[in-house]
Amino acid sequence: MLIVQKFGGTSVGDLERIQNVANRVSETKKKGNDVVVVVSAMSGETNKLVGYAEYFSKNPARAEMDMLLSSGERVTASLLSIALQEMGHDAVAMTGRNAGILTDSSHTKARIEDINPNAIYKAVKEGKIIVVAGFQGVNEAGIVTTLGRGGSDLSAVAIAGAIQADLCEIFTDVSGIYTTDPRIEPKAKKLNAISYDEMLELASLGAKVLQNRSVEMAKKLNVNLVTRSSFSNEEGTLITKEENIMEAPLVSGIALDRNQARISLMGVKDKPGIASDIFNKLADAEVNIDVIIQNKAHDGMTNIDFTVPVSELHDAKKIVDTFVQSGDIADDSYNEDICKVSVVGVGMKSHVGVAAKAFSTMAKNNININMIATSEIKISMVVDEKYAELAVRGLHDAYELDK
Amino acid sequence: MLIVQKFGGTSVGDLERIQNVANRVSETKKKGNDVVVVVSAMSGETNKLVGYAEYFSKNPARAEMDMLLSSGERVTASLLSIALQEMGHDAVAMTGRNAGILTDSSHTKARIEDINPNAIYKAVKEGKIIVVAGFQGVNEAGIVTTLGRGGSDLSAVAIAGAIQADLCEIFTDVSGIYTTDPRIEPKAKKLNAISYDEMLELASLGAKVLQNRSVEMAKKLNVNLVTRSSFSNEEGTLITKEENIMEAPLVSGIALDRNQARISLMGVKDKPGIASDIFNKLADAEVNIDVIIQNKAHDGMTNIDFTVPVSELHDAKKIVDTFVQSGDIADDSYNEDICKVSVVGVGMKSHVGVAAKAFSTMAKNNININMIATSEIKISMVVDEKYAELAVRGLHDAYELDK
Repeated sequence: MLIVQKFGGTSVGDLERIQNVANRVSETKKKGNDVVVVVSAMSGETNKLVGYAEYFSKNPARAEMDMLLSSGERVTASLLSIALQEMGHDAVAMTGRNAGILTDSSHTKARIEDINPNAIYKAVKEGKIIVVAGFQGVNEAGIVTTLGRGGSDLSAVAIAGAIQADLCEIFTDVSGIYTTDPRIEPKAKKLNAISYDEMLELASLGAKVLQNRSVEMAKKLNVNLVTRSSFSNEEGTLITKEENIMEAPLVSGIALDRNQARISLMGVKDKPGIASDIFNKLADAEVNIDVIIQNKAHDGMTNIDFTVPVSELHDAKKIVDTFVQSGDIADDSYNEDICKVSVVGVGMKSHVGVAAKAFSTMAKNNININMIATSEIKISMVVDEKYAELAVRGLHDAYELDK
Repeated sequence: MLIVQKFGGTSVGDLERIQNVANRVSETKKKGNDVVVVVSAMSGETNKLVGYAEYFSKNPARAEMDMLLSSGERVTASLLSIALQEMGHDAVAMTGRNAGILTDSSHTKARIEDINPNAIYKAVKEGKIIVVAGFQGVNEAGIVTTLGRGGSDLSAVAIAGAIQADLCEIFTDVSGIYTTDPRIEPKAKKLNAISYDEMLELASLGAKVLQNRSVEMAKKLNVNLVTRSSFSNEEGTLITKEENIMEAPLVSGIALDRNQARISLMGVKDKPGIASDIFNKLADAEVNIDVIIQNKAHDGMTNIDFTVPVSELHDAKKIVDTFVQSGDIADDSYNEDICKVSVVGVGMKSHVGVAAKAFSTMAKNNININMIATSEIKISMVVDEKYAELAVRGLHDAYELDK
C-alpha cells in the first residue's frame, strides 16, 4: 500500500517522541508499504515563535509570520529523516515547496491551489521514505505560505489525494472518533468507521480530532482518512465514503457544544427586510449564526431567537443594540448558560423515528428543549447548560451506542 | 549610499538585541541610505539544532542538516523584518532562495555559484529595507543548501558584490581589526583601513574577525568591507583595495598563531621524490603544511622541518611514521610548544629593511628564531611558545604600531 502518515505536534513533542515516530514509520515501511510522512512542528515550538514575534509587534506582517512559523516543521522533518536514515532507511526530507504544494497568497491562512507530486512520486519509486514539512507551501511568486489551523492535516490529505494514496493516517494523542466524549459518558465507544458527512457534523460540533477543512478535502479528493493514536497500536477510526461503510448504524454519535450563546430579539417589527437586515449585518461582522427560530407574527411584531458562538457574542450584541436604538426591535436578551446537543447519523436519512426518539428521551429526563434544528443527518437541540451531561448520556443510552 | 549590513549570531543573540539591530538599521535608513540586511541565527540556536541532530545520528545526512540549520536564519530574518515594520519602515524578509543565492550541491559547505539580484533590486527600488536570511542558498534542483563556517558573512559580501553596494558592513562583537591582539599588547590600535591581502594574511594567522573566504570574495568582487561593533557606534576598519588606502603604513599588524606544531624529519634519504612523496601523502590526508625548511644534504641525508596545525598533528604523525618504518626517514620528532609570529604589511613590498628589523628585534630580546618564512607582504617566524607575548610586544614596539 501507499500510505501517508501524519504526526502532529504532541506526537513529535520531543526528541524521544520523534524517535518513536521513526520506529512506527519504519515498521510500516518494513511491512512492504510505501510511506510518505507529514509532520508538524514540535509542540510548543510554534507558540514560542509567535511569542517572539509579539515581542516586536502586536500585529506582525503575515508574510513574515509565514517565514517565521514555517521553520518549525522544517526542523521536525529533517530530524525525522535523519532518525530514519540512522535506522538504515533511505529517507529524504522535503519542505512544502519541495513536495510541490502550491497555494494562493493569503499568508497565515493560505489555500492549497495545486500539488505537483512529481518529486514525491520519484522518491517513492526510488524506495525512499519521504518526510514532508507540513503546514506550508509556496505561492506563485515562490514565497513561503502557511495553511493556518490544522494545516499539517491538510498537507497530508492533499498529498494523499495527489498521489492517490490508499490510506492517510492522522496520528494524534487520541485513538479515534468516539460515539461521544468519554469524559462525559464513560461507556462511549470508538467507531470503526464513519462517513465524511457525519465527521463534518461532529467536527463542527466540537470533536477536536479533525478540522472540517481536512475532512472536506478528504471527501473531495476521495481520501480514506484514519485517525489513530501515536502512543498505542490500537486501530483508529476510518473516515470514508458512505458507500464504503458496510453496516452504518442508525446514529453514529452524540455531540455536545457548550460554546453557544442564545440571543433573543423581542418585538421585532414585522416588516419586510428587517430580519434580513439584522442577519446581513451580523454576517458582515463575521458572526456565525447557528440555530434560528422565528415565532409567528402577532400584533405586527415577531420574536427571533438565534445562537452564536460565545466568543462572538460581544460583536453580535453591538449590532443588535443598534436595532434596539432605532426602534426596530423592542427589546433583547442574552443567555450564555445554554448548550447544543446533537444526534448525528447517516442512518436517519432512511429511517423514521430517530428525531422522535431524541425528543422523547429529553422528555423522559425532564429536559426542556429550547430550540431545535435539523439537517438530513443531524438533530440539534438547544437546552439549558445544566442538562448537558444528562442529555448526552440519555441520548447515548437511547440509541444504544454502547452496544 | 547602498549599504549591506550583516549582523552575526551574538548581535542577534536575543530579542532585545534584535531590537537594537533594528534601531541601528533604522538609523542607517533614515540617513537616506538604501539598506540590505543579512542576519545569522540567534547565537546558540545553531548549536541547539546540531545537538538535536546528534541525538539521532553521529553522522547525519548533510542535505538534512542544511534543511535543519537553515531554519535558524529564517527565524532571525523574519523577526528583524517585523521589528523594522513596527518602527514604520517598509521591510521585507527574504530567504536565501528569495534573495537569489544559487549554490552548488555541496551540502553544509556549498559554494555560491551565482546571485540573481532582481528581487533585491526591485525591493530596493520600492524603498524597502530587505532582510536576508544569511548562510543559505539553493542548488539547481531547488534544495536548500548552507555555506558552512562564516556563511552569513559570505552571503553579505556576495550580495554586496551582486548589487554593487557602496559598502558592506560586518557587525560583530569586536570593533575592528587591530595592529595586534589587545589582550597581548594593550597598546594595540585599531586600524582605519587595511588592504585585502593584508587582511587575508592576518585572517589566516588567526585574526578571527573575518574568514578568508569572505575576504577573498570581497577582493574578487571589489566590495568595500567594514568590520565594526554592533554594540557601539565606533567607526570600524575598512578592508579595501590597496590603491584606496591613502597612507599605507610600512607594517599594518603583528599576528600570533599558537596553534602550530613542528615536525622534524631527521635523516631523510636524499633521493629524488622522497620529499614530494611525503608532502603529497600529507596533502591527500588534508593536512595543512605551513612553514617548511629543508637543510642542505649531507652524507646523502637531509633534514626537513615543517609546521602543521596542532589539530592535524595526529594525522600527520601517522603518515610520517610509515616513512620511518620503510626506512626512508631515519627518525622524527614533534614539538607542540612553538608559535608563529608574523609581521604583515603591504609597505614591505617597496621598502627594504623591514625583515632586518624583525630579526634584530628578536635578537635584542634574546629570542631564538627556529624557522623563517616570508611572502611579499609577510614575514613569519617560528619561535618557542614561551616567547610568544615577548615577541609580539617587541615587534609592535619596533614598528611603532602604537603611534
